Amino acid sequence: MVNVELFRDGGDSREVKAGETIFHEGDEGKVMYVLLAGSVKLSVTGRQLEKLAKGAVFGEMALIDASPRSASAVALTDCTLVPVTGDRFRDLIRRDPQFALDIMATMAARLRSMDRRI
Amino acid sequence: MVNVELFRDGGDSREVKAGETIFHEGDEGKVMYVLLAGSVKLSVTGRQLEKLAKGAVFGEMALIDASPRSASAVALTDCTLVPVTGDRFRDLIRRDPQFALDIMATMAARLRSMDRRI
Repeated sequence: MVNVELFRDGGDSREVKAGETIFHEGDEGKVMYVLLAGSVKLSVTGRQLEKLAKGAVFGEMALIDASPRSASAVALTDCTLVPVTGDRFRDLIRRDPQFALDIMATMAARLRSMDRRI
Repeated sequence: MVNVELFRDGGDSREVKAGETIFHEGDEGKVMYVLLAGSVKLSVTGRQLEKLAKGAVFGEMALIDASPRSASAVALTDCTLVPVTGDRFRDLIRRDPQFALDIMATMAARLRSMDRRI
């Protein structure tokens, strides 16, 4: 979870309809997303990894290591998303150490959830 | 991998003998470690997750979310480690955004490796 106030009213939010695919596993990824409203499902090879709610970030891994999307993201309800480019992401990390810690906490939660599956 | 120069000559390194357990899965964790020399194995419930070399960090998750160790760490060779407290970790993130990105890259690599296992 990140502080959604950092991303509100920037005029750059995007509406996505329920059922729409935001990205597919294996796609090239140029942005991460902050979920301002709605619910998103992350899955790998069709298996649900996580259901995301307001304040969640996803797609951050493609910005960190420039690799293809490791999971697919599908809107479960109508959603409001803010796409965040790599430049803005690195700028946020420089300006706001708490943002960096929030991203790490998101990744730590995903790793712990994975540890329980293997 | 982090820049090991940030951690050299601080007078706070610790030598660990081959075969020694650095921490056990489920332990409370108060520090993360930077590996200055040697090789360390991370495992979950006895299954090897990763073999770490110079410049690797491990144990960072306990600092990020204050949860018990998610994996066990055992020295495969004699090792030199620098323990990093939560306060120092947060200070490094504030001072050095590249350090934050390096920690995220480590976590992203672990998540991608996990994605391939599930």
